[in-house]
Amino acid sequence: MPYGYLGSMRTRPGCRDDVVAILLSGVEGLREAGCELYVVGVSDQDDVTIWVTEVWRSKEHHEASLRLPETRAAIGRAMPMLTGEFTSQELTVVGGLGL
Amino acid sequence: MPYGYLGSMRTRPGCRDDVVAILLSGVEGLREAGCELYVVGVSDQDDVTIWVTEVWRSKEHHEASLRLPETRAAIGRAMPMLTGEFTSQELTVVGGLGL
Repeated sequence: MPYGYLGSMRTRPGCRDDVVAILLSGVEGLREAGCELYVVGVSDQDDVTIWVTEVWRSKEHHEASLRLPETRAAIGRAMPMLTGEFTSQELTVVGGLGL
Repeated sequence: MPYGYLGSMRTRPGCRDDVVAILLSGVEGLREAGCELYVVGVSDQDDVTIWVTEVWRSKEHHEASLRLPETRAAIGRAMPMLTGEFTSQELTVVGGLGL
């Protein structure tokens, strides 16, 4: 069954939109890396947190994607704008709509 | 922009799979109610928690879906198997892949 990853990250004040732009900039390349779904969301009540829901063909596809040069470059650009506060939850995706 | 909802719920011991089946049973009807994405996930490390990621055309579509007879019936079937511990986060979906 597909591998799911729910993550959140906090940005430094004023940096949320720049980090969102980085997260979305590489989205087309994710598909060929085995990503089936990548949803980036923000909240009106909080201007420094970004939530990401990801579904991958497998955990191995997700891990391999983190080693891609373009992923590493994007992480490098985003890191100075992040506080280091992350949450994450790995999932086994058991079904749904739109997958 | 689309409305996102990240939720989790805890089930009574041994009830997780039955609640997952209820959540997935109505999935085809969600599309016509304005749901674009509905992902149900579980974790190997925790046998009583279920995570749901939803994307709807709007917050109003999501709220209207909760008043549908079939949704209310499904909630009624699931409630006795839940502990009452929920988390939720509303989002504005700003982009991604697979939407």
